[in-house]
Amino acid sequence: MRLAELSERSGVSTATIKYYLREGLLPPGRQINATTAEYDEGHLRRLRLVRALIQEGRVPVATAREVLGHVDDDSLGRTIRLGAALWALPQGPEPDEDDPSVIAARAEVDRLLELLGWETARELAALSPVHRSLVAAVATLRRLDHPWDAEQMAPYAELMHLVARRELDHMETRASDTEQVEAAVASTVLFQPVLRALHRLAQEEESARRYGIE
Amino acid sequence: MRLAELSERSGVSTATIKYYLREGLLPPGRQINATTAEYDEGHLRRLRLVRALIQEGRVPVATAREVLGHVDDDSLGRTIRLGAALWALPQGPEPDEDDPSVIAARAEVDRLLELLGWETARELAALSPVHRSLVAAVATLRRLDHPWDAEQMAPYAELMHLVARRELDHMETRASDTEQVEAAVASTVLFQPVLRALHRLAQEEESARRYGIE
Repeated sequence: MRLAELSERSGVSTATIKYYLREGLLPPGRQINATTAEYDEGHLRRLRLVRALIQEGRVPVATAREVLGHVDDDSLGRTIRLGAALWALPQGPEPDEDDPSVIAARAEVDRLLELLGWETARELAALSPVHRSLVAAVATLRRLDHPWDAEQMAPYAELMHLVARRELDHMETRASDTEQVEAAVASTVLFQPVLRALHRLAQEEESARRYGIE
Repeated sequence: MRLAELSERSGVSTATIKYYLREGLLPPGRQINATTAEYDEGHLRRLRLVRALIQEGRVPVATAREVLGHVDDDSLGRTIRLGAALWALPQGPEPDEDDPSVIAARAEVDRLLELLGWETARELAALSPVHRSLVAAVATLRRLDHPWDAEQMAPYAELMHLVARRELDHMETRASDTEQVEAAVASTVLFQPVLRALHRLAQEEESARRYGIE
């Protein structure tokens, strides 16, 4: 397809597509003459992912470029590709290691992973930015007098594990490794607002069931 | 306690506490002479909540004032107070009602609530900003070629319902209605980052279990 059709099918303006091409977020089309290039379904898919990252996930352009670099790196096994792409996404704030709340939170997170039997998460703890985000979030709760311990967090972690299993089941329905990693990145960025809204709606429903609405 | 002690116990500087007092986010202390006021445990609790809203939840000051106004309004029943406080928190983007993706998303959300038997959520649909956020988030997924339907969303909604039940169980351990509503607001703002980090950590763990880490 030509640029105009790519723009129409994606709902992204030609000016924005040209910007993404210049920024290396979208691979160049196949040049058919000096002024015209041809794009395919892979470009459309990639364009939707770029859109998801930048517009919905509010990921900075340089970060999106890094994430997509991992998505495209087929020298890596799928887990490492997936992990690298997800780790490159913006994370929560970094924990301040001198803060006593952070030290206590790290101990609770360690206990949580042991309770859950999440062996890989324990092995990767020192490397994973996701692990650091969890420590920072738990430390904030502690500082504000909500000292959640490992036993209290475990059922939520199990629920999130069910969510993650369903997501990977869905991801595996995609054809290629690249499409699978693309789907996982899009799902992480786009599905979070859905989970958040479902969570609040469930609070509303449960609260009305327990206490009525008068 | 005096201002200095309130500052020490909360970790919030006296200048910031004075700012919150001027902005009406914290009720005035009991004036014991022209220059000194006395604060109590209620002030400390409120100060932590203000901190959670503004610093962690990035809630604008005017919005925080509105949320706290509902928390304090004991002319309302607990559910309405809780609902009003939670509805006043910043929500996701508003759906654009002319967008075909929004129309399709609204139909799927309606079907979802019917499938789940969430009667109150259905009754409140026209009023609830949480409902509109869910429609907007589902519409975004559709626009980016992830057309999640009611049957696909239902299991996630059920999981979030379990999360909400646990949160309300925990909230009910607090003594007064005001403390319960305060705890629910703090939990909504502060627990979201924990859930998000647990979700990503679960993705990491499950992906390593399925595909190995090489």
